[in-house]
Amino acid sequence: MAQAKNKQVILKHYVSGFPKESDMNIIDSTITLKLPQASNDVLLLKNLYLSCDPYMRNLMNSPENCFYRRNYSPQSPIAGCGVSKVVESGHKDYKEGDLVWGFTNWEEYSLIPAAQILFKIEHTDVPLSYYTGILGMPGMTAYAGFFEVGSPKKGENVFVSAASGAVGQLVGQFAKLHGCYVVGSAGSKEKVDMLKNKFGYDEAINYKEEHDLNAALKRYFPEGIDIYFENVGGKTLDAVLLNMKLHGRIPVCGMISQYNLTQPEGVTNLAHIIYKRIRMQGFTVANYYHLYTKFLEFVLPHIREGRVVYVEDIAEGLEKGPAALVGIFSGRNVGKQVVVVARE
Amino acid sequence: MAQAKNKQVILKHYVSGFPKESDMNIIDSTITLKLPQASNDVLLLKNLYLSCDPYMRNLMNSPENCFYRRNYSPQSPIAGCGVSKVVESGHKDYKEGDLVWGFTNWEEYSLIPAAQILFKIEHTDVPLSYYTGILGMPGMTAYAGFFEVGSPKKGENVFVSAASGAVGQLVGQFAKLHGCYVVGSAGSKEKVDMLKNKFGYDEAINYKEEHDLNAALKRYFPEGIDIYFENVGGKTLDAVLLNMKLHGRIPVCGMISQYNLTQPEGVTNLAHIIYKRIRMQGFTVANYYHLYTKFLEFVLPHIREGRVVYVEDIAEGLEKGPAALVGIFSGRNVGKQVVVVARE
Repeated sequence: MAQAKNKQVILKHYVSGFPKESDMNIIDSTITLKLPQASNDVLLLKNLYLSCDPYMRNLMNSPENCFYRRNYSPQSPIAGCGVSKVVESGHKDYKEGDLVWGFTNWEEYSLIPAAQILFKIEHTDVPLSYYTGILGMPGMTAYAGFFEVGSPKKGENVFVSAASGAVGQLVGQFAKLHGCYVVGSAGSKEKVDMLKNKFGYDEAINYKEEHDLNAALKRYFPEGIDIYFENVGGKTLDAVLLNMKLHGRIPVCGMISQYNLTQPEGVTNLAHIIYKRIRMQGFTVANYYHLYTKFLEFVLPHIREGRVVYVEDIAEGLEKGPAALVGIFSGRNVGKQVVVVARE
Repeated sequence: MAQAKNKQVILKHYVSGFPKESDMNIIDSTITLKLPQASNDVLLLKNLYLSCDPYMRNLMNSPENCFYRRNYSPQSPIAGCGVSKVVESGHKDYKEGDLVWGFTNWEEYSLIPAAQILFKIEHTDVPLSYYTGILGMPGMTAYAGFFEVGSPKKGENVFVSAASGAVGQLVGQFAKLHGCYVVGSAGSKEKVDMLKNKFGYDEAINYKEEHDLNAALKRYFPEGIDIYFENVGGKTLDAVLLNMKLHGRIPVCGMISQYNLTQPEGVTNLAHIIYKRIRMQGFTVANYYHLYTKFLEFVLPHIREGRVVYVEDIAEGLEKGPAALVGIFSGRNVGKQVVVVARE
């Protein structure tokens, strides 16, 4: 039977604090390119594009500090969202050659329960890598978080943190399409320029150069913020709470500034949740995939006609994966961080 | 025209930190017991019962630190919810002798715009003082916060802080009536005994004697908390966030532990809002008074038939008002703190 080399990204050990490239190893294993017998509901996949996402940091923790269902096992490949091609299918819904996206391992080939696949890819006139981003988990996250959790109304004031990131760049564009006034924050001049010139944000804040974020928010939101799309937590959240409007909403998508701290920053202005009657709501895209078809009908025409753009930061080759993944926690990426394993 | 003495509780100056009795003065003024001419829509009230409520602390702040519409003015009477009798009415909906509850001043007689009155009192087979508590603002707060914001389901696990207070004692009883498992926390042995023996809480925590609130919550909620009715904020909230269940809800009614701190405590576990997809929602009873009739239909039979009880802490005489009000911030009150100005 055909044996193939199968490069893998292995977690060396549980991580505490900021993750480092050296917390992972690249190893060469081998795989038989044939489904084992009696493997119903299993797929043999060739992985094409892998997605680097902030939630993956938590999966590197030891089990007692992991707040999702299943953390990574040391000496095993890490896992995440990806775009893959079906090499062999043990499930009736899939056949050889199908393109799919869902949860896969960081390796060249994977044996994956079909249940881990989220969707078959039907539209290939757009870049395949988009299914790790705008047409994948981050896209659905932006859509569900902004429209379903945020309950936006035309003309409302929206603030987005990590505003050029995989999710943030879309929240800003969706909010503009919805007729909102939108301000974003990001951590470099390059990103701030992108916010205004590429994604159409009305204003942009470089949080690394603002000594007083509260004052900056007061300047850009003299009447206050209706919706804060929360990606970062910590000091940013504290400043935002002082500037929320009555009945404001805070969809909580992430708190990336806190994930690598052994002692998270304290948020002191929570009493404003009462004063302003704020609804602050954590959500996960997993509860919204029933809207995926509706989302595609919304977003595909916008992409095709250029009304919504998507910036990706592409790392070429699985061996670049650890550096790419680690980079998102220091904001080294510009736009959605993708790792290309193979292009077809 | 009839002149009367009119004792008043005056704010001496804006307050910072814990309020003290000496931040207020009792003065004897006089009032003409007759509506001024052309005072349409104004009522002359004789105040009977005054309510001591935590939100009043914020109104003692200077304007830049006051987060509600109108802070108290130094050298003027403080104000709050109360039960009053109409002495003379300049509004068609009210007549002499009517009993009403709403916003009034801390003085014996008040001239009040009729718009400040919330409801006319129709049921007098229950104690009149109840309209400062179970049948007034705190009662509606418990009802709206638990049922409308909390979205409880039968069998869910509910935790209440300040659980013997004006609102908390009702949340606990409403939750039991709804078929929930309910644990409360309070700050003395006497209060903790009341939680279990008077209000029917399943378990009770004396937070002043628990060195590790997280461990205590794990003991009482091995499967986690579905609804945390938040009255206190700070360290309690931080411990609760570690113990919330997936899709838990936190109606945020108050954060009394923070109101007197010039630098509020930092809450560090907010990332659990994402991990557990928690909805944390500040609310104010003012947005729910349209449910008042429905609330009375729910609660009056429970009171009359003894299924819901209400514990009041009664201070006799307006001159006891400042001590009674200040006392709620150190938990000196046992149950709803009321000040009796006159009994009829």
